[in-house]
Amino acid sequence: MNDLFLRACKRLPVERTPVWMMRQAGRYLPEYRAIRAKTDFLTLCKTPELAAEVSIQPVDLVGVDACIIFSDILVVPEAMGMELIVEEGKGGPRFPNPIRNRAQIEVLHRPDPNSDLKYVMEAVSLTRRNLQNRVPLIGFSGSPWTLATYMVEGRGSKNFRHVKELIYSHPSEAHLLLSKLAAAVGDYLNAKISAGVQTVQIFDTWGGILPPDAFLEFSLRYIREVVERVRPSGVPIIVFCKDCDHSLEEIAQSGADTVGLDWTIDIGVARSLIGKKVSLQGNLDPSLLYASPERIREAVVSILEKYGRGPGHIFNLGHGILPDIPPDHARAFVQAVKEESPRFHR
Amino acid sequence: MNDLFLRACKRLPVERTPVWMMRQAGRYLPEYRAIRAKTDFLTLCKTPELAAEVSIQPVDLVGVDACIIFSDILVVPEAMGMELIVEEGKGGPRFPNPIRNRAQIEVLHRPDPNSDLKYVMEAVSLTRRNLQNRVPLIGFSGSPWTLATYMVEGRGSKNFRHVKELIYSHPSEAHLLLSKLAAAVGDYLNAKISAGVQTVQIFDTWGGILPPDAFLEFSLRYIREVVERVRPSGVPIIVFCKDCDHSLEEIAQSGADTVGLDWTIDIGVARSLIGKKVSLQGNLDPSLLYASPERIREAVVSILEKYGRGPGHIFNLGHGILPDIPPDHARAFVQAVKEESPRFHR
Repeated sequence: MNDLFLRACKRLPVERTPVWMMRQAGRYLPEYRAIRAKTDFLTLCKTPELAAEVSIQPVDLVGVDACIIFSDILVVPEAMGMELIVEEGKGGPRFPNPIRNRAQIEVLHRPDPNSDLKYVMEAVSLTRRNLQNRVPLIGFSGSPWTLATYMVEGRGSKNFRHVKELIYSHPSEAHLLLSKLAAAVGDYLNAKISAGVQTVQIFDTWGGILPPDAFLEFSLRYIREVVERVRPSGVPIIVFCKDCDHSLEEIAQSGADTVGLDWTIDIGVARSLIGKKVSLQGNLDPSLLYASPERIREAVVSILEKYGRGPGHIFNLGHGILPDIPPDHARAFVQAVKEESPRFHR
Repeated sequence: MNDLFLRACKRLPVERTPVWMMRQAGRYLPEYRAIRAKTDFLTLCKTPELAAEVSIQPVDLVGVDACIIFSDILVVPEAMGMELIVEEGKGGPRFPNPIRNRAQIEVLHRPDPNSDLKYVMEAVSLTRRNLQNRVPLIGFSGSPWTLATYMVEGRGSKNFRHVKELIYSHPSEAHLLLSKLAAAVGDYLNAKISAGVQTVQIFDTWGGILPPDAFLEFSLRYIREVVERVRPSGVPIIVFCKDCDHSLEEIAQSGADTVGLDWTIDIGVARSLIGKKVSLQGNLDPSLLYASPERIREAVVSILEKYGRGPGHIFNLGHGILPDIPPDHARAFVQAVKEESPRFHR
């Protein structure tokens, strides 16, 4: 097996820097769109054969060094009892009855992932089998805070009024919700590990909307709870908190093996701060993939130079690949990492 | 005159911490909405009597320690030759013919602010006169980068594809546009100073979408050019780069007197980094004004404690006040700063 990715997570020596892309199974690939043309988004998530197929597409088509299971973070709140709706062309999944009072939090149940989210576990097993050990398989979850944000707002938001009212005016309700989510997310990731994923990534997409002290209290604390639940499995744990560079050292002390970086920090600066403790994943600006393959290569080299020599770097974008990136540019990105990185490991 | 604000900008002793709010002349005030009900947004910007009236409203109604002239940052690109449209209820001002090639940059002209933006200068003079020296008057501009972002995207954007293609694939065109903007912004702020503003603030709303090296090259460099043009006037200069904490030290070395902070940094950490060089403005999470007056007061005290004793702090929100904040909460915020801050200056 190509285990570059797993070794890099653990800061073990590698011959070259491994590379994958967040949202690599997605709309920029015509082969993905061909499948989506025949089925809606949630059905795709819930049909193991299809989820496995689109998960593996970027391994075959783009040459990435890791496979991430295709799914959506909101299937966990759905399994806890919230109705989830995806209307095509209407801006992503949403909860029509968002959480606005304590009673709605109290009725949320702790799912049994092997029954309530059986379709995810089947997709994991099938993907793992079909990968035939070519590259490692990653499972993921939203962080408790990020899931809470969607559950309270109902969908993505600009000012996050409702979830901020929850934490600022009703903190005990917020903690109740987040505790329930930490338990559910821990169970979910452990079930995925049992089903076959070899690494897990926790996405904290919305930690960055908080002031640093609120981030520590309402987001990172519950990420740490999840990490503690997953830790005994021994698989590498990646924590990615977007726009949270103010708390990089605290994130590195969460128990994660790897810290994901968005593109608003110099990866060399991050390495000097936390690189003795964790490996780093990132951090090309996703918009750079609009540029020419030559320009993409320059940008890849610049990040490799900033990180410097030695192990502990997983190349990735600083956020998900954008849906209108030409697939040739994604391939040029992956190829540039493969060709330019060996000299940083000699 | 209440000159607390001017003294704090220069890190001179004050009896209490001065306070104002970005977007304080705005929709959360019913008195503002009453005027807007009778006129459209651009007409309000371009009618000095009305602009002066809404600028002064928060001084009378909320008790802030500084007045900021009501206007829109996009009037500068309009004066450079770009058509600007505001359709009510359609998401803010926009440029129907965004910049997509070099020729469009070349034809932009350098406005004479005293004729091309005469209505702003008249609004400044009138506001200054009507304020009768009660509190200082602030003038503002978008940063060159932030103006360029709107000019190239046409409006606010999610992924900023076009302006990022400009800098990543056509950097010399980007620099041409930004140089023109730096000259125009410098002229504009100097004309405002001549017309009567006693401080200027440069808003870099979109610096935070860039990786740090691109921020330095495409945003901060041109902010520094503007600062150099305005410096000889001697008025305090505030630079506010949202989501750019990665470059706080470089921002503090831009020549600014005051650095604005959003709410994603601990103001005590910022003070320890750059507080010997500049004063700091900020940084309450604007969403905290949804909470109760008691909770608002707690949050005010927390920020005062984080900043600590002594001068050099101008209290503000970390971004503009949100349009649906109850006016009583804005008043409670200002009152809390006035009542809680004196003990930090004894």
